Amino acid sequence: MRELLVIGIGAGDPDQVTVQAIKAMNRADTFFIIGKGDEKQALVDLRTGILDEHVHLDYKVVEITDPPRDRTPTDYEGVVEDWHERRAAKFEAEFAAEPGVGAILVWGDPSLYDSTLRIVERVLARGRVTFDYSVIPGITSVQSLAAQHRIVLNRIGEPIHITTGRKLAEGLPDGVDNAVVMLDAHCTFTQVAEAHSEIWWGAYLGTADEELISGNLRDVEDRIVARRAELREKHGWIMDTYLVRR
Amino acid sequence: MRELLVIGIGAGDPDQVTVQAIKAMNRADTFFIIGKGDEKQALVDLRTGILDEHVHLDYKVVEITDPPRDRTPTDYEGVVEDWHERRAAKFEAEFAAEPGVGAILVWGDPSLYDSTLRIVERVLARGRVTFDYSVIPGITSVQSLAAQHRIVLNRIGEPIHITTGRKLAEGLPDGVDNAVVMLDAHCTFTQVAEAHSEIWWGAYLGTADEELISGNLRDVEDRIVARRAELREKHGWIMDTYLVRR
Ligand SMILES: C[S@@+](CC[C@H](N)C(=O)[O-])C[C@H]1O[C@@H](n2cnc3c(N)ncnc32)[C@H](O)[C@@H]1O
Ligand SMILES: C[S@@+](CC[C@H](N)C(=O)[O-])C[C@H]1O[C@@H](n2cnc3c(N)ncnc32)[C@H](O)[C@@H]1O
Repeated sequence: MRELLVIGIGAGDPDQVTVQAIKAMNRADTFFIIGKGDEKQALVDLRTGILDEHVHLDYKVVEITDPPRDRTPTDYEGVVEDWHERRAAKFEAEFAAEPGVGAILVWGDPSLYDSTLRIVERVLARGRVTFDYSVIPGITSVQSLAAQHRIVLNRIGEPIHITTGRKLAEGLPDGVDNAVVMLDAHCTFTQVAEAHSEIWWGAYLGTADEELISGNLRDVEDRIVARRAELREKHGWIMDTYLVRR
Repeated sequence: MRELLVIGIGAGDPDQVTVQAIKAMNRADTFFIIGKGDEKQALVDLRTGILDEHVHLDYKVVEITDPPRDRTPTDYEGVVEDWHERRAAKFEAEFAAEPGVGAILVWGDPSLYDSTLRIVERVLARGRVTFDYSVIPGITSVQSLAAQHRIVLNRIGEPIHITTGRKLAEGLPDGVDNAVVMLDAHCTFTQVAEAHSEIWWGAYLGTADEELISGNLRDVEDRIVARRAELREKHGWIMDTYLVRR
């Protein structure tokens, strides 16, 4: 039975990789990189750095660019479904062409806002290639954020809510007033109305470019907005996340 | 300046430790174990196993048993506050007595339902010992759960809610119907009313005794309740967590 390893590699720091991930990487013959085709060179370099540091055998890298996608479809669901299917088919073809153990590296942890496992399940459901697969957890950007700010995510006995910028814009559920926000391109924290909120923000966590800002939300929000724009301009891309607590 | 390292060590598997955690453990002169004094031998053995596997220098272990606590106080808040203060004072005294770099190992990740960072902040606030401290993230039991079941925690675009058994019993917030539950001694999943819910349950994750059950909640809940009781009886303790989705 062929084998596929889905490996979480942390937020960017090669030291954030687990021993389990290192062992898994060293069992892989081929690393499949699934991407939009517009991946930032800095991320490619980070990942290459992680492989170079931890893999001491020969390996092959196969890049699988996402198929083009109709961004203004009339039949939205049908188009998205079709796109996912073509994406799975591309991976299926590449995986079938490479003998040996395959691996997919995932930033952070595969269980958190990542589509890799859904692609893998879809490929299995298609039934044309069969394989066993396992998942190796990795340090998420949320944990990097908490560690660098030295904070506990929950208040005592309270829940932790991890959400997206889009969902934050719709308003947090009643009773939730402590949220980690990911995938936010619009500084949605500026829309949090409560006067006495706090924020812990981090960008490029785990990398040499890491930046942290924290404090009373109203006091620091302008500084975060400005700094975020500056950094995005400077690096050409940004990845950031934050905890907001009201 | 003295230094303290708060190190996440994953859910139990020595391979789940990161390179960063291994480097930190090897910089420590003394490991402080803060506990209730009734820690299960199995957990002590797991932790010793992690140290033995990864630390190749001499180190000292100092156990700090929690001070006794009035379980039926009339002045609840005052008693809890006093207990936290005595707990901090105990750590302060032990830390002050040991020269060199100190470390506290935390199961999973220090940012998730763990009191270590609150103790450290309290010791610093007391102002009698000064030190720098840093936090090294670890793989949480939540990520172990997701990896072993090979699931993504969020539904596409939806939030992730991590909560306690007690909070689940009170009912999930409106709009939240996908929750990871920790600290649940009472199989609160049996109280989730929706007919079409699914559950992914895991106990002793990351250890040799790991057990997983998943399926339609109504179909598998009795099996989980029975198996949980059996395992608890057999091992004398249990640690379990689950994702429930309605
Ligand atoms: C598609 S999600 C993937 C999350 C990833 N699986 C994880 O475990 O962290 C991408 C989002 O994660 C956050 N993120 C990922 N890496 C980050 C980093 N190095 N620094 C800050 N935020 C990061 C950002 O909010 C970004 O929009
Ligand atoms: C006080 S919390 C600490 C959580 C820890 N800091 C982490 O990151 O996983 C303890 C709860 O975590 C969960 N837990 C911790 N270790 C576990 C394990 N090995 N298997 C299953 N659940 C675990 C259980 O729900 C338990 O009640």
